[in-house]
Amino acid sequence: MREKGKLIVLSGPSGAGKSTVVFKAMEGREDFCFSTSVTTRKPRPGEVDGREYFFIDRERYDQMVDRGELLEHAEYVNNGYGTPRAFVEQRLAEGMNVVLDIEIQGARQVYEKMPDAVMIFLIPPSLEELRRRLEGRGTDTQEAIEGRLARARQEYEEARFYRYIVVNEVVDKAAAEFLAIVTAEHCRASDRLHLLK
Amino acid sequence: MREKGKLIVLSGPSGAGKSTVVFKAMEGREDFCFSTSVTTRKPRPGEVDGREYFFIDRERYDQMVDRGELLEHAEYVNNGYGTPRAFVEQRLAEGMNVVLDIEIQGARQVYEKMPDAVMIFLIPPSLEELRRRLEGRGTDTQEAIEGRLARARQEYEEARFYRYIVVNEVVDKAAAEFLAIVTAEHCRASDRLHLLK
Repeated sequence: MREKGKLIVLSGPSGAGKSTVVFKAMEGREDFCFSTSVTTRKPRPGEVDGREYFFIDRERYDQMVDRGELLEHAEYVNNGYGTPRAFVEQRLAEGMNVVLDIEIQGARQVYEKMPDAVMIFLIPPSLEELRRRLEGRGTDTQEAIEGRLARARQEYEEARFYRYIVVNEVVDKAAAEFLAIVTAEHCRASDRLHLLK
Repeated sequence: MREKGKLIVLSGPSGAGKSTVVFKAMEGREDFCFSTSVTTRKPRPGEVDGREYFFIDRERYDQMVDRGELLEHAEYVNNGYGTPRAFVEQRLAEGMNVVLDIEIQGARQVYEKMPDAVMIFLIPPSLEELRRRLEGRGTDTQEAIEGRLARARQEYEEARFYRYIVVNEVVDKAAAEFLAIVTAEHCRASDRLHLLK
């Protein structure tokens, strides 16, 4: 019997390096996948249904919301986005660890619906370091950087329901901690009591 | 500031391979150590005070019990044995992960005094496999083997308060899981909330 996968919710301030860390961690790992969201927005050229997103119409989307078929959902620029529960459950049943890279509001919705989700908050070594990274990118105005920092401080206040905090000082170390957390979660006694017989 | 170490309590039936797994895991790791117990028994030739045991007299031992200075204690063959809390606390404060390889009764005492202890129960893939291993050793009579198996079944009933279960099918994998659990425990948000500022 293949072990059920884990749902991993990864959040953290913009600039913390979530994508870098999670791609590094998932390198060569066939037991990890990302969740695929549904959206009501139209596909852009080159986007494939079921790959970037499941593209659905508003009627179906509203129905999914009403029926609790989305683990979390939110509106951006008049379009709905959400994480389909059935898709996630199916991947977990297949033994895949499913990664959700989402913001805190969505993370909280997931956590309420699936309290066994592995909640990981990724942070930079310090907010000063975050400032240096954002300035180093050279893509944001000073005002935008201040905005991101203020938002990070706000997120830190709201992040207290996460089970784990990983500090991204060195990407390899953060990726190793991410994987260690998933391995440890697979060893939780609550999942393995059937072995005590 | 060096991160505080973790107290790791490892138990499991005789023949599960606790020593093998933990020695494999600790290979080359300077952030791990074993706890040193106190005992009232006399040192054997070659034993050094503070290395194999802290050798103490019965009066001091009883005093430590009365004052709650032992995380757990038990009597064997008219001698007292126990884990000195001060020693463990000091090693943890130095950033060492301290491993206690003890039976369930002692483990329960530790867990009650230090609920943050990382409780790991190591088991063989199955009781049939445990029987094969015990028979393969060739050191026990059939009667002794039946006794060990009966005891293992009893321990499985009592082990439900452990936080993690590691299956020792392949030593390297079990050692890796042991280390992953310790790494993950160091990432627990409850220990790292001070970083959210």
